[in-house]
Amino acid sequence: MEKLIVQKYGGSSVANPKRILHVAKRVIGYKKKGYDVIVVVSALGDTTDELIELARKINREPPEREMDMLLATGEQVSIALLAMAIHKYGFEAISFTGPQVGIITDRTHTKAKIIKVNALRIREELRKGKIVIVAGFQGMTEDEDITTLGRGGSDLTAVALAKALEAKYCEIYSDVEGIYTADPRIVSDAKKIDYISYDEMLEMASLGAQVMQARSIEVAKKFNVVIHARSSFSKNRGTFICEGGKMEEVVVRAVTLTKNEAKITICDVPDKPGLASKIFGSISQAGINVDMIVQNTSRNRITDISFTVQKDDLNKALKITKEISKEIGAGDVIADPDIARVSIVGVGMRSHPGVAAKMFSALAEKNINIEMISTSDISISCIIKKKYAVLAVRAIHKKFELGGKK
Amino acid sequence: MEKLIVQKYGGSSVANPKRILHVAKRVIGYKKKGYDVIVVVSALGDTTDELIELARKINREPPEREMDMLLATGEQVSIALLAMAIHKYGFEAISFTGPQVGIITDRTHTKAKIIKVNALRIREELRKGKIVIVAGFQGMTEDEDITTLGRGGSDLTAVALAKALEAKYCEIYSDVEGIYTADPRIVSDAKKIDYISYDEMLEMASLGAQVMQARSIEVAKKFNVVIHARSSFSKNRGTFICEGGKMEEVVVRAVTLTKNEAKITICDVPDKPGLASKIFGSISQAGINVDMIVQNTSRNRITDISFTVQKDDLNKALKITKEISKEIGAGDVIADPDIARVSIVGVGMRSHPGVAAKMFSALAEKNINIEMISTSDISISCIIKKKYAVLAVRAIHKKFELGGKK
Repeated sequence: MEKLIVQKYGGSSVANPKRILHVAKRVIGYKKKGYDVIVVVSALGDTTDELIELARKINREPPEREMDMLLATGEQVSIALLAMAIHKYGFEAISFTGPQVGIITDRTHTKAKIIKVNALRIREELRKGKIVIVAGFQGMTEDEDITTLGRGGSDLTAVALAKALEAKYCEIYSDVEGIYTADPRIVSDAKKIDYISYDEMLEMASLGAQVMQARSIEVAKKFNVVIHARSSFSKNRGTFICEGGKMEEVVVRAVTLTKNEAKITICDVPDKPGLASKIFGSISQAGINVDMIVQNTSRNRITDISFTVQKDDLNKALKITKEISKEIGAGDVIADPDIARVSIVGVGMRSHPGVAAKMFSALAEKNINIEMISTSDISISCIIKKKYAVLAVRAIHKKFELGGKK
Repeated sequence: MEKLIVQKYGGSSVANPKRILHVAKRVIGYKKKGYDVIVVVSALGDTTDELIELARKINREPPEREMDMLLATGEQVSIALLAMAIHKYGFEAISFTGPQVGIITDRTHTKAKIIKVNALRIREELRKGKIVIVAGFQGMTEDEDITTLGRGGSDLTAVALAKALEAKYCEIYSDVEGIYTADPRIVSDAKKIDYISYDEMLEMASLGAQVMQARSIEVAKKFNVVIHARSSFSKNRGTFICEGGKMEEVVVRAVTLTKNEAKITICDVPDKPGLASKIFGSISQAGINVDMIVQNTSRNRITDISFTVQKDDLNKALKITKEISKEIGAGDVIADPDIARVSIVGVGMRSHPGVAAKMFSALAEKNINIEMISTSDISISCIIKKKYAVLAVRAIHKKFELGGKK
């Protein structure tokens, strides 16, 4: 529908009554312009974390079905309050839980996948001229058990509804103005990006850009839903996430930074075939994701192997690694949690040689040592010491001339 | 089912994690004894009031459909937490919202009536050996809008489920031990009543006993559901509410007290036909319930008319009464909010003459003036000055020898 938009407001946009009233006015503004509006909302502020805390006080390992039953209340509170706020200003709104609008998921409680959306009830209420408000983050199984969609699940609800109802845009509101060439808190002349492709956005999301979760972008890409990521506190245009064709020709799109990894090094590994597969087989069996792996050139038939894991998994990974090290006759196992990953992202770099060299020289000019390197089709990442993270982001951002004129 | 019980726990019984764990143990105790258990829970502590407060901050007259959407979250939190608590102790429990277990209501949002209960899902889970936890106070309309059942709605849920599943008992847990011959905070030797009939309990509920709402007792009576009102903080037997046949032969069952009424007197009303109907017609048109009415014997063709209304309605009723008084040429209108109603309740008094006289003499002996009297088949109420309320309750309780030996 040409005049239909889906708007999703995150927890910080509806953190208190004042902000909820602000969102109501914003939604009504679109209604007045002649749009049909579907609003997806998250739980108020830190509600979800508070509910998790409450559950932990009762049972440190609560059954996931009951966790979903509990967490789904957070968004249900938001939708009711937003509907009340819209009514206060004399407009008709009606709220629905995920189950009520037929968001059907699989049975993977706490991180369910949407199977289908049966949007009949929404269409009916839109036809009556109402603003429709839908609880994000939740759905139900075929036999009507309540499920939640995991981190970033409200974005996913919004994208799925935009697809099901063929909305013109899916607007994702947060407290930032859009996607930037680097974190504006680090790089003062970071520039807002007007258009970005799904692939670039996906890469950025997995490399530390926190505006949207990778899952929702994947779904948007699959169904070609145009996303407009923007701020609920301003009227400025944000960033459109859409198919590559509309992009400017830019080689490198943005610089990202993550600090949630740690490095493990196994020293003096005998240089025998099959040992690497033994090490990483055991780690992956424990459900731990290993990202980068570096194996030094071997000297005297022994070598060092380093790899990175998520910080949350560090202790578990260390324990396993130490056991294997003993087993295979290797030496010490060293953990380094003080690392950072700086990355550059851009579809343009596929066809431009020399991008990696330019990034490395930016780091070299600042005397920053690169500990590990990993590359994909549209990104290059370097692991460096955490204390150089800000310096590195600024240097690379400048080297590629990504900044706006200030 | 002979081995099925429904247990309902009120908000104070599940006010915090510690109490929820306590309730879980209690429920498990019954499961261990071989019972199938359905647990109905209210919202934690003051949650419902807090949600109402939150709504008022956004819209002073929120749409009732959205109010129900909001309030229903309170019980949903409770059921999830109680299920987690039961799992912690190694027993299987599964929670359901009112809509999930097919509690179908009419469309009267905020005080909906239950039309039917489709308990298929509950039966299925009981068959699997699970403890089934159901959110009290809520249901849904035929087209799946969430409704709430009004004050005391969780009791109603419990009674309706007990009926639908033919439970042996419906246990209503609160923080008091059962129904007493008088409020134990007022009368030190007030005695717990072992058995009480539906009719007596109904009368007591409407005359100030706060253990259960009249609506749930009506439903229990209609379907002959045996209710056991007891405390979640002790193992003692409480009060069974059931059909009259099983009762001891007691003339007067209990003394009750309410202080939520006010008296309005219109002075010097001309003694002409039709004036009373004019007065009370206008008041009832304004949606105000008048309870007792007393018209003095007329002297010199004028009379005084007094009546009682709920204190909440006093200002509205006064305004209307003053207008009518002017219109019909009557005199001053006087309001007295400082009144109390003491009542005796008992099916036995139907066949025992002299019960009223005994009550009046109890009051006379303490020099307490009776301002108004009202009687029903199984109760007698006197309006007296509020300051004599405690004295009156004690005197009547003693006169009828209702106390236990202390």
